[in-house]
Amino acid sequence: MNSNKIVECVPNFSEGRDLEKVEKIVSVFRAKEGVKLLDYSADKDHNRMVVTVVGEPEALKNAVVEAVGIAVDIIDLTKHEGQHPRMGAVDVVPFIPIRNMTTEEAVALSKEVAKTVADRYNLPVYLYEKAASTPDRENLAKIRKGEFEGLKDKMANPEWKPDFGPDQPHPTAGAVVIGARMPLVAYNVNLNTDKLEIADAIAKKVRFLGGGLRFCKAMGVELKERGIVQVSMNLTDFTKTAIYRAHELVRIEANRYGVAVVGAEIIGLVPMDALIDTAAYYLGLEDFSTKQVLETHLME
Amino acid sequence: MNSNKIVECVPNFSEGRDLEKVEKIVSVFRAKEGVKLLDYSADKDHNRMVVTVVGEPEALKNAVVEAVGIAVDIIDLTKHEGQHPRMGAVDVVPFIPIRNMTTEEAVALSKEVAKTVADRYNLPVYLYEKAASTPDRENLAKIRKGEFEGLKDKMANPEWKPDFGPDQPHPTAGAVVIGARMPLVAYNVNLNTDKLEIADAIAKKVRFLGGGLRFCKAMGVELKERGIVQVSMNLTDFTKTAIYRAHELVRIEANRYGVAVVGAEIIGLVPMDALIDTAAYYLGLEDFSTKQVLETHLME
Repeated sequence: MNSNKIVECVPNFSEGRDLEKVEKIVSVFRAKEGVKLLDYSADKDHNRMVVTVVGEPEALKNAVVEAVGIAVDIIDLTKHEGQHPRMGAVDVVPFIPIRNMTTEEAVALSKEVAKTVADRYNLPVYLYEKAASTPDRENLAKIRKGEFEGLKDKMANPEWKPDFGPDQPHPTAGAVVIGARMPLVAYNVNLNTDKLEIADAIAKKVRFLGGGLRFCKAMGVELKERGIVQVSMNLTDFTKTAIYRAHELVRIEANRYGVAVVGAEIIGLVPMDALIDTAAYYLGLEDFSTKQVLETHLME
Repeated sequence: MNSNKIVECVPNFSEGRDLEKVEKIVSVFRAKEGVKLLDYSADKDHNRMVVTVVGEPEALKNAVVEAVGIAVDIIDLTKHEGQHPRMGAVDVVPFIPIRNMTTEEAVALSKEVAKTVADRYNLPVYLYEKAASTPDRENLAKIRKGEFEGLKDKMANPEWKPDFGPDQPHPTAGAVVIGARMPLVAYNVNLNTDKLEIADAIAKKVRFLGGGLRFCKAMGVELKERGIVQVSMNLTDFTKTAIYRAHELVRIEANRYGVAVVGAEIIGLVPMDALIDTAAYYLGLEDFSTKQVLETHLME
């Protein structure tokens, strides 16, 4: 990786059964200069594949555009069945700023990809999340409501004119949702009680919907085997809703039930900055810069 | 960087005044595949230059051997003056394991370099720190005592036969000390008092010498401008003496003086793992792996 800027993309493709097709799409991301395939998982029940790839913005953009083209060619939504809601052969393509990159730059990149795939593959594109053109289009579920089967009727309504591309669905590939979001941190805090209602009550207080932290979704979850419960959270912008803040709020709310925090877990990947921010808070670091982290110099 | 293993080297050269010579040495580390020059600083009073370079083990080894050869050629210790103690044109060469590398592997690498430079440049080499052949040679100051001027007499004593190379000093380049050590974390904790004796008393309790943490050196320091004091620490193996443990011990000792920790600072570079370890402790993370840190996948 020679570039300073690193962006992540997690495209979702509507193919999780035909492994030959899966490989055709995934292979685009292999052995490409400036692009690194981190993970992919194809789910048969969902009939869907999620790819996680990082790279330099320009290189990643080109790879994603290429993969979208292949998916449009080989996936036929008129014959698609699966448990997961979907409206396109390429269903959703979020770009996520990882390093030396602002949200605005990720938005700009997502719009470039949106315009290119709309023009090149004659594909309607909706912009979502941080790239959304109206508040109504921020939420993926709202855009996707009606799915592929309802897309023709939905697009007949001028309110659902796509941001790029033709005013009707691609006959076999439907439409695609493209945009930018912050990296999501899946963070769970364990409590030394088996009462799910306590975890639920705490979750309601710390999450945005209940008047809590702006970029926090939360719910109570039972860990039956261990006989405890946890507050399971999704932090959708750790730069504004820090891990330690969510952690401390859960602890404070747990106090009133006489319940203690007995551990926590991060599920999946987490950006380095989210953890450094946490260490810096608890130590009370003054004037600390991530440039002081030795490894950041290995990524430039 | 394509290799999994990353090692750091911080060679000290006995030239801090002639910038042409400084550049000749530093240039070895520029634009080399698998090697990255992080920093160098030449000090006129010390007449000494410290280079910080990281890279893949094999590439870094070759670059260091090359730089040692140039320094031996162009630095003449018989004409060297400076405030810093020194016994060689290349004074000391520590290798530091950074990523996917054990201390043992860093020791092995340092010995390869030691043997190569001894053979190639007819240079006596002493192994030190984790690479030392006897406990007496672990400490750099002990090996260097007597400096370049006293080296001939010192080496006449069989006790000071070098680990590699000839039994007498190189006529102009003296001898070199090579070895492996853990990354050093310079960590200072600020206290809300102006009484230096309190910082000193705490320093004595938390440091190894006073019965404290094994890999902790510490002393009290006055921050006159701010009217406070700090416990200034060097953590010489953060994998065994964690930052958070040193921090909490200082806090606990400060309690008995009615003094509070009001901030902290990390000076210079710090390995990512040292901070992640700290975040994991305070959050109480269960089963966290550094592989979950997104950026680690960008360095492989």
